[in-house]
Amino acid sequence: MKPLPWFYAPNLDARPESAVLVADESRHLARSRRLRIGGEIIVFDGLGTTAKAKIVDISERGTRVALDLTAYAHQIEGRVRVHLAAALPKGDRQAVMLDMVTQIGMTDFTPLLCDRSVAKFSIRSAARWQKTCLEACKQSRRPWVPRLHQPKLLAEMFNTGGEAGRVVWLADSRGGYPTAVQKVTADELILLVGPEGGFSPSEWELLSDADIVPVTLAKTVLRTETAAVAMVSAAITMLGV
Amino acid sequence: MKPLPWFYAPNLDARPESAVLVADESRHLARSRRLRIGGEIIVFDGLGTTAKAKIVDISERGTRVALDLTAYAHQIEGRVRVHLAAALPKGDRQAVMLDMVTQIGMTDFTPLLCDRSVAKFSIRSAARWQKTCLEACKQSRRPWVPRLHQPKLLAEMFNTGGEAGRVVWLADSRGGYPTAVQKVTADELILLVGPEGGFSPSEWELLSDADIVPVTLAKTVLRTETAAVAMVSAAITMLGV
Repeated sequence: MKPLPWFYAPNLDARPESAVLVADESRHLARSRRLRIGGEIIVFDGLGTTAKAKIVDISERGTRVALDLTAYAHQIEGRVRVHLAAALPKGDRQAVMLDMVTQIGMTDFTPLLCDRSVAKFSIRSAARWQKTCLEACKQSRRPWVPRLHQPKLLAEMFNTGGEAGRVVWLADSRGGYPTAVQKVTADELILLVGPEGGFSPSEWELLSDADIVPVTLAKTVLRTETAAVAMVSAAITMLGV
Repeated sequence: MKPLPWFYAPNLDARPESAVLVADESRHLARSRRLRIGGEIIVFDGLGTTAKAKIVDISERGTRVALDLTAYAHQIEGRVRVHLAAALPKGDRQAVMLDMVTQIGMTDFTPLLCDRSVAKFSIRSAARWQKTCLEACKQSRRPWVPRLHQPKLLAEMFNTGGEAGRVVWLADSRGGYPTAVQKVTADELILLVGPEGGFSPSEWELLSDADIVPVTLAKTVLRTETAAVAMVSAAITMLGV
C-alpha cells in the first residue's frame, strides 16, 4: 500500500475537525496529484502535529479543498537542536543543500556571511528556501519545518548568549572523524561550514578563540553543500535523534 | 594563495615529462578558466597519480594544450572499497548523487535494478556519469575516479562470489545507527540503497536470506539520493579512510 501523501495545513493546534487547503497546497492536491473527493491524505502543521484527512470537497478550479480531520498525532522534536550555519553555495546548490539536510533532520539554518562567500544572501532566494524545506518535510514525512534564521557574520554566531547550552562543530580537515568526537549533551549542536575559498585569516582568529570541535568529514575537499549534508548526517547519526 | 586547478590527463603511469590536453580538458583550460602559457595546474590520471604541470603551449582555438610535468605523486586508495549499489533516482538527482558521493569518497558504483525503481537505467545517462564523477574528483582534489559498474539486479549483487571479503550495509530504518555498527574489517563495504517505493516482497525475501547489516540514517524517510549520500558519508566516517 502506498503511503498517503502529505500536505501542509497550518493552525492544527486546537485539533479542529475540519480544515481547508488553499493556493499551492490545494492546486497541488487537485491538479498535480489528481486526488478526488473521498481520497485520504495526511496534513501537518510544521510544528509536530499531523492528522489524517479525508477530502470532502474540491472547488471547480482546485483552488480550495475541504477536509475532515481525524487521528491527530503530535511528535516532539529530538532532544538536541541540530543547527546548520553554513556559507551559501551558488545557485541551485542552495536548494539541493536545504532539501537534503531537511530530509535528514536539521532543525535550524543560519546563512553564514563569510569574507570569502561565493554567493551573496538575497531575500528572494530566502523566500524560496521556506518552500524547499516544506517540500522536503512532506517528502520525508517529517512533521517539523526547520527554522530559517537571518544571515549572520561569523562573529555574531559567537555573540548570541546561550553558549553554555551548546556545542559547536566545525567542518575542518584537521579535526577527528565524528565517531571520535565526544557525545553531545548540550541542547543545541551548531554545525559550522565555511565557504569553498575557506575562512579568512581574521575569521580563523575568531574561530581559534572560540570553543569549537573540529570535525573531519572526508579526506577530500568538499563543496559547501556536500560538507553541510555530511555534517548534518554525522550529527544525526551521532545523536541518534 | 588559491589552490591550483585540476585537469584530467590519462596515461601518467610512466611519469612522462610532458603531456597534451585535448578536447574538453583543453577547452576548459583555455576558454572557461582562461589560463595562459606559463600558468600552473595539477594533472591527475584518475588512478591515483598526480603531477604539477606548467602550460608551455596553447593552440589557437584552445583545442590542444601542451604541458611540462614535474613533481609526480601517487596516493594509494583507502584499505576498504566503498561500493554504493543504489536504485536510480529520477533525472537530475542522479548527477547530484554521484557528484556528492564521489566528493565524499565512494570508490565503486553499481546501479541497482529494483522491482519498484522509479528511473530506468539508460546508456545515455551512464555516459554522463563518468563526466560527473571526473568533475567531482577535480573539485574535491581526489586522484581516483570511481569505477562505474554495469547495472545489476538485487539477486546478482549476492551472486558474484567474493562474499567472504565483504560486508553489506542496507539503508533500513529498522537497523541501528552506523555508530553502533561493528567496525568493518573486510576489503569491500557494499552500501545498498533501495528505491523510494521500497523493495518488493520477493526482494525482501532475498535480503532476509543474505548476510546484511541494516543501518538507520535518520528517523525520516529519505529520498534515494539523500540516503545514498548519508550512507557513503557514514561509511567514510566509520572507516576513517
